[in-house]
Amino acid sequence: MTRLDAFFAENLNGFERFLLASVENVQTAVSLQKAMRYSLEAGGKRIRPMLVLAVIESFGQNPQLGLSAAAAVEMIHTYSLIHDDLPCMDDDDLRRGKPTNHKVFGDALATLAGDAMQPAAFHILTLEAQYTNIQKIRLVSELSVAAGMHGMVRGQVDDIEAEQGDISIEELEAIHFYKTAKLIEYSLVAGAILANASDQDIIHLKQFAKHIGIAFQIQDDILDIEGDEQVIGKPVGSDIDNFKSTYPAILGLAGAKAHLASHDEAARQALSKVACDHDLLTQFLEMVVTRKK
Amino acid sequence: MTRLDAFFAENLNGFERFLLASVENVQTAVSLQKAMRYSLEAGGKRIRPMLVLAVIESFGQNPQLGLSAAAAVEMIHTYSLIHDDLPCMDDDDLRRGKPTNHKVFGDALATLAGDAMQPAAFHILTLEAQYTNIQKIRLVSELSVAAGMHGMVRGQVDDIEAEQGDISIEELEAIHFYKTAKLIEYSLVAGAILANASDQDIIHLKQFAKHIGIAFQIQDDILDIEGDEQVIGKPVGSDIDNFKSTYPAILGLAGAKAHLASHDEAARQALSKVACDHDLLTQFLEMVVTRKK
Repeated sequence: MTRLDAFFAENLNGFERFLLASVENVQTAVSLQKAMRYSLEAGGKRIRPMLVLAVIESFGQNPQLGLSAAAAVEMIHTYSLIHDDLPCMDDDDLRRGKPTNHKVFGDALATLAGDAMQPAAFHILTLEAQYTNIQKIRLVSELSVAAGMHGMVRGQVDDIEAEQGDISIEELEAIHFYKTAKLIEYSLVAGAILANASDQDIIHLKQFAKHIGIAFQIQDDILDIEGDEQVIGKPVGSDIDNFKSTYPAILGLAGAKAHLASHDEAARQALSKVACDHDLLTQFLEMVVTRKK
Repeated sequence: MTRLDAFFAENLNGFERFLLASVENVQTAVSLQKAMRYSLEAGGKRIRPMLVLAVIESFGQNPQLGLSAAAAVEMIHTYSLIHDDLPCMDDDDLRRGKPTNHKVFGDALATLAGDAMQPAAFHILTLEAQYTNIQKIRLVSELSVAAGMHGMVRGQVDDIEAEQGDISIEELEAIHFYKTAKLIEYSLVAGAILANASDQDIIHLKQFAKHIGIAFQIQDDILDIEGDEQVIGKPVGSDIDNFKSTYPAILGLAGAKAHLASHDEAARQALSKVACDHDLLTQFLEMVVTRKK
């Protein structure tokens, strides 16, 4: 068992329980609670929240300290998936093999379930008794920048607009920087804030976040060509069928793999400058670039 | 000129400029910025943000202190209108006589413009240099509760579900308590937090918020029967045509007016217990219960 496997074994179940507790025993409309819970427990790789915890452990502190900061980013990620799947967006019927939120609860309730997760994410950060006031404010600030017009939502808009024509590799990377890397950046920075890391460490962790985020997307595109349909849970070649701009489409498959390797290397370089144990985060990076689904 | 008129004349333009500045000069997708700006400058009565400022003035302090807290609530209100108007929700083509956001920018961009306003609201609270750390955290906490599954979104879900059958006057009031009064409650509490009001004052201001919020909705329903189409900007009688549960439908028109008077009186009672100047907030209440649009 790798250190990363052990880390997931030690922390994942506790995180899942913590996340679901945030929508349990709350006074709200039963249907809204069901819709929120449905998507929160739909699983996924939990990369963002587990990165929060992993950074704290890498700085030699108790990863449990990160649970609220981790639940907050998973709520933002989950709301973005619910809204992304809506008929007016990507119009997807299935996510991770299960019917999408709006297929089960209808478009209106799915929209509102996503809408309710955003304030829930910020609320959970203000509730955590273990965080100092300064930490709470920094976390709210970092998450709001990462999630909104300076981050994830900007990337989604850029992505929609890019579907209308050919784009360069730089433009494709910029889309993924905002759409994917910014929430990963929050995860790493949140862990660093809670571990009282230095500003210098945070700068290097942001670089690490950028490269791991873009690497994640490149591997996604490669799996769409080389992946096993049974493993990834969706038809191979769907990007090509949908005329999506991808790294292999712009660089060729070999070029995309070389590009992935360069982001892998840049991520390692950035991480090497952070004054923490590097093993766990290096294994996280390896998981992202070698994953089969 | 009433004191309230003078207060709006002194503070409204400054608020409008402050609100728009929050989406100007930002690095983001041009189309996203345009879509956010379109709805933010579409106006409306600005009741929520002006209440923030009015409470601060009522406690004898400079209302300008409330600008960030006021912009935050107007952003939450504005996103809720954009999402409410979407085809999967109320499917409205016009708001305040102008095409709705999705009619101009398309459903996907309208969804994302609304999505981006939520983190923008929380971000602006963390940026304000005049607020103490404790004030920032309390404002983020109050706004997140008022906006989400414990507040406005819960009210929207309850409202959708109530359309499927007859409801009691208590159920109708509960819908409006969450859907409308909770954001008004944030506005009053935010002003009180920034004016360093006592916990006791905040309890009474929450009562005032509840009654002014429900009164606002009762007057809305009355205007749908008695209003002047030219003044209110939409066809009179649309609630009846849409089989909406309204106060006049349940209580009769005279009964609804008596009910409005009882909330007006209860609001005055609650306000009388708050240790601040009552003139401005009383005039706010009078505006809400006597407005013609």
